[in-house]
Order: sequence, then C-alpha cells, then structure tokens
Amino acid sequence: MTDGKIYRASTTAPVNIAVIKYWGKRDPSLNLPTNSSLSVTLSQSDLRTHTTASCSSSFSTDSLLLNGSPQDVSGGRTQACFRELRSLRATLEHQDQSLPKLALLPLKLVSENNFPTAAGLASSAAGFAALVRAISDLYELPANPTELSKIARQGSGSACRSLFGGYVAWEKGTASDGSDSVAYEVAPASHWPSMRALILVVSAAKKGVSSTTGMQTTVKTSTLFPARAADVVPARMREMSYAIEKRDFETFGRITMRDSNSFHATCLDTYPPIFYMNDVSRAAIRAVEAINEAAGKIVAAYTFDAGPNAVIYYLQESHSVVAGRFQEILGGVEGWREDVPATGGEKVDERTAATLKEGVSRVILTGVGEGPIRVQEHLVDEKGEAVTSS
Amino acid sequence: MTDGKIYRASTTAPVNIAVIKYWGKRDPSLNLPTNSSLSVTLSQSDLRTHTTASCSSSFSTDSLLLNGSPQDVSGGRTQACFRELRSLRATLEHQDQSLPKLALLPLKLVSENNFPTAAGLASSAAGFAALVRAISDLYELPANPTELSKIARQGSGSACRSLFGGYVAWEKGTASDGSDSVAYEVAPASHWPSMRALILVVSAAKKGVSSTTGMQTTVKTSTLFPARAADVVPARMREMSYAIEKRDFETFGRITMRDSNSFHATCLDTYPPIFYMNDVSRAAIRAVEAINEAAGKIVAAYTFDAGPNAVIYYLQESHSVVAGRFQEILGGVEGWREDVPATGGEKVDERTAATLKEGVSRVILTGVGEGPIRVQEHLVDEKGEAVTSS
Repeated sequence: MTDGKIYRASTTAPVNIAVIKYWGKRDPSLNLPTNSSLSVTLSQSDLRTHTTASCSSSFSTDSLLLNGSPQDVSGGRTQACFRELRSLRATLEHQDQSLPKLALLPLKLVSENNFPTAAGLASSAAGFAALVRAISDLYELPANPTELSKIARQGSGSACRSLFGGYVAWEKGTASDGSDSVAYEVAPASHWPSMRALILVVSAAKKGVSSTTGMQTTVKTSTLFPARAADVVPARMREMSYAIEKRDFETFGRITMRDSNSFHATCLDTYPPIFYMNDVSRAAIRAVEAINEAAGKIVAAYTFDAGPNAVIYYLQESHSVVAGRFQEILGGVEGWREDVPATGGEKVDERTAATLKEGVSRVILTGVGEGPIRVQEHLVDEKGEAVTSS
Repeated sequence: MTDGKIYRASTTAPVNIAVIKYWGKRDPSLNLPTNSSLSVTLSQSDLRTHTTASCSSSFSTDSLLLNGSPQDVSGGRTQACFRELRSLRATLEHQDQSLPKLALLPLKLVSENNFPTAAGLASSAAGFAALVRAISDLYELPANPTELSKIARQGSGSACRSLFGGYVAWEKGTASDGSDSVAYEVAPASHWPSMRALILVVSAAKKGVSSTTGMQTTVKTSTLFPARAADVVPARMREMSYAIEKRDFETFGRITMRDSNSFHATCLDTYPPIFYMNDVSRAAIRAVEAINEAAGKIVAAYTFDAGPNAVIYYLQESHSVVAGRFQEILGGVEGWREDVPATGGEKVDERTAATLKEGVSRVILTGVGEGPIRVQEHLVDEKGEAVTSS
C-alpha cells in the first residue's frame, strides 16, 4: 500500500533544567514520580536535539542513529514510546481507511544534538521529547503536548517537560496507570523572557550513579526522602508557580537553590550515599552566594542535576553582575560569545576562583526558550538514507 | 580562712566521636539537644585533655590557660559551669561548716591537649569534661558522672559524653530545665574492647561554619531536619544500643555510616547550605566502601563530625584489612606507629588513593577507652604557678 515510499517529519526539542527536582519513581516501569517537578525550558539556539522520524516499507527494522552512532531501541523505554504512538496511529487508520498504513512500518529515527554529549547535560529529556514529537508529526496525530507528555514520560521522566517552552510543571498524578501524570505549561517563555541561564560544565572524572538507579536506591533507603516527597515539594510547587506568575526572582531563586540542596541531601542520605556535587560544584555555590551578598538580594540561583555541572539562573538585568563576575574568573574557557564586563561588589575570593578555574571546562550562556519546533530540514533524505545536518 | 593556700585537683578526660550525631539545640542557652546521641569514647593514650583546677585566695581572678595560651572565661558557657559547680560546693560548705570555703575563691585552670589543636578534632568535649571533672574533684563534690554531665553539657553539648568511658548515650530529655538531659554509659569499654578508630586528619583550607551557628541554622531552615529529630534518630538509638549490647559490628557500622550521612544531609538542606565534607572526605567514604566490598561485609564504618576529618571505626580483628589498606595509601604521612601489612581484597582505585594521599595530612590510630581519670600530676605548682606537663 505504501510501496516503499519514505514518510518523514522532523522536529527540534529543547533541554529543560528543573528548579524543583524530579527524584524518585513510585512506578519505575511507567516512570511515575513520587513528587511533582517544575522546570525552565532552555533556548534551542544553544541546546537542542534535532530528530527526523521516518518510516517506510523499505526499512527492515526500527532504528535510531544519534550523532552518527546507532543506538539500541530494544529497551523498554523506547519500546513503550513506539508502542503508544503506533497504537494512536493505528486508531486513526482504523477510523479513516484512506490513511496510509504507517503504524506497522519500521521506523528510522535520526537525531543530532547541537551540544557536546560528553558534557553531561541532561540530553535524554530533549532526546525523548524530539523522538515522541517527530513520530507524532509523522503519524499526524491530533495529540496535544500534554497528551504527548504521557508518552514522552515513559521514555525519560523529565522528557515530558521538554514538550513545552517556558515554565513547565510535571504533575505527579495519582492514577496507577499514569494517565494524570502529565506536563503542562505554567507560563510561556514570553511571560518572563528575561530569564537567563549560565551553565558551568564541570569535568567529572567519571559518571556518577545513573539517575534511574540512584533514585530507586533513594526511595528504598533514605529516611529523609519521605518528608521531601510528601510535604516539602508540594509546598514549593505552589510557591514557585506563584513566583513565576509574579515574576518574583528572589522567591524563584531561593526555592531553586533550596530545592537543589534538598534533592542532593536526599542523595547523601541514600545508603550507600550518592554524591553528584564535588568541590568545584561547591565553589560555584560559594561564588553565587558572594554575588548575591554583594547585590544585597538574590540575583543568581544555582541548581545541580545528577552531576557536578552548575546551572545558574539570573535575569537579563543582572547579566553583568552575574555572568560578568563568572567571566572574570572563567574568561579563558570555551563558550563565552561576548565580553561581559563585571559589575557589582567585590571579586569572588581567590580560593573559590581557583577551584572554579581548575574545574570548569566550558560555559554555556543561554536563556528561557520555546518548546519543540517542527522543521523542514530532514536528517533522512528522500531515499531513506541518514544525512548530516548542515 | 584559706590563707592563700593553693587547692588543686587534676584529671584527664577523653575525646568522644559520635556514631549517632548531636546536631540541633532545642534550647541554646542550656545546650538542650533536639535529639539523643551516642558516642564511643576514645583512648586517652592518643587523645586527651589534662586539666588542673586550682583555687586560692591568692589568685586575683578566674583564669584558664590552654596549651600555654590564656583563654576567655567570661563566656556564658564557661560561666555556667563555674556557677553550677560553685553552687554545689557552697551547699556542701553550708552543710558542713568545717569545710574550707572554696566556692568563692578565684579558680585557676591549666589545660593541655596531647594532640595538635589545629587538627580540627573535637577538643571542646574533652576540654569541658576535664574542666568540670577537675573542679568537681577540687571541690570534693559527691556528684556522679551523670550528675556532672548536666553541667558539662552546658559548657559544650558533647562534653557530657566525655565523662564516661566506652559506649555512651546522651539522652535528649524532655524537661525544660534540662534536668533529664544527661549522659549515661551504654556499655563500658571492657564490654567491647576490640573497637578501633583510625582518624584521617584532612587539611581544610579554612574552618567551616561553627557547629553552634550551623546547628541553629539547620533547626531554623532545614525542611528535612524535623524527620531526623522526630523519627530517624530515636529508632537508631534503640538499634545502636542493641548492636553494642550484642557486639554486632555490621549493625554498628551500618548505623554509624547512615547517621553520619543523615547529619550531613541536613547540613546540605540548611539554607544557606553547610558543607563539612569535601572531595577528600568522599574519597575516604569510597575507600571504606571498597574495603567492605572486598570483605563481603561491613568491617569498617566512616563517620564525619563538623569538618572534613574521617573517623573510621573497625574491630581489632580487621586491623590489617582496614588500617593496612589505608597505610598502603597513606604510609608516608605522620601518625603510623607500626607497620600494618594490608590484607584482603584489591587495592583501592587509583583516583581515590591519589585524592586521599593529597588531602590527608596525618593519621591517628586509637581505640575505645576509659572515662576521665584523676591524676596526681598537676599543671599548677604548689605556689600556684602554671607548669608544663612533663
């Protein structure tokens, strides 16, 4: 019926960095979290996955190429996404017999990241968001982002938040089938467009415990974790949503820092303990504290995912006070696109500066951005072959 | 009445290192804790304070000399100890008019530590225990150690535990006047004499937040701390007491490690966050984990106080498996008194070993020991002058 025709759709999807952290699954196979979380979607100019989903009777099997390397698609998470999307397509095809029968065709997915994968940036969120969105477009599914978020969540929990731009919440939900564990937009990027993020990429000697393994061990062993999931996060979700609504950076920043610390505290309380931050991460915290002290208020807020990299949120109006201060220390590393004159307060103390200088390998300057974007640049050509993005 | 006579009494008192940590005061002025704690008293051969308490009408004012340096005795904590001890003496003098009137005489206290004060070892516990015990002896008070522990606690919380040898609990108590917040012996050193402690002294660039300030901030700001104080520690106190009774090192070690991590987790959850452990401390944790893995059971247990030093508990039977493995890495640093051949398992990985080698400045090998001991060597001579210990 489809005669070897190559069907294609392409999308780009963003990275998101949580300000209220996802850590802990109440259902590991469905990726249902023990607590809600909230993130800022980062600009795709700086960090994005570009994915083409294609299908054809001429393909022999499902496949995924990421940055030129074949990836295993037989894992439960990828299979869950394929299965759910194919099922939605099959329903459409059943309802409208004139539609081409794509649901059963092998899928060829080709993805590229515009950032170094070795940097330890949470690329799986952008990756699964792009995969789900590209296949949804390929299948011409009428699903909205919140519906797709249920599928992306099964690929990688935090991927559900990358289906939206701006400020995004992932509601933990209570249904055992995960039907109400979805992402939604708290506010679009345009509501608070001056949000900036400075990422300090810290060279880690080796990858720590994987987050999937880590969070399971935390749920099982940490005696402090239940309080975080039951009480601490729900209160912060409300306060953070309100801070975003009011564009209140001090509250936004305070909760961001406290929630990052709370998450890493439950990692430390895990047995055996999990450490993601190192002495370089702590130097970044000290530098942010010094910047805020000099400003007399919170103008910068650190947060750390499951690794030593620091993400520092601040507003454009504090660009020289925050990014400028870090450029003063880290001017020599890769990633600065402009000269930012430092203003405001004293220099960061020498020991902190030296630790940062020794441990930070590159910076990424970015800001809040939009959700997935459908693009016409395909990474699979008309003959069904993978091509490299220009 | 006392005619310029010099009255003297001298004692030595030990350091103790908690396996269930004291962190948080419910009453800062009385040093009443938010949770009970439990410690091991360390041998005075390796770590002790030697204090002579003297009083005489020929002295002009209360004074304290520590390692040859005059100390301020006007602070509330020292004053509280002086006041309580004098009050007990005054009662005795009132009951028996034949006793010399010492309660009102100026006190001259001279103290010496047999360990480097710069090492960041909790010396205030030994210091206040020695001070209280020496004055109590000077005043010939009939008070038992538990009664004295109420006084020492007001000098420095953990000092109350240094009035006993062996395995010591400090009951948090519930009375608002602190009358039931006392220390008691869980088991004497002779009950489980094979307990050893290897202390890795880590050179910290600068002293972190003081524990008094730190614990107050934790109580005020940590959202995870209430669960620790209310639920986590009480359960551990029971389990740990039982482990000591049964000489069950695996349980002893597991609780020790978990409770240290729990304490540091609440520090990290404090706002702003408090960090006492650094990358060297974490390397010590990894080395202990590797040693336990090689042994197939818990033979070593780390614990960290309010600083980066590691204290590693183990049993004498594991001396070569634990101390030997560390000597293999740290053979070049000060403090080893013997050659300990390493046995059991693989070497600790190179990166961990390198971090330890770079960051550990000395080791102290010691073990469980006795409580304060009255000694005849006085640090104040018969004329009332301070002398140096031989």
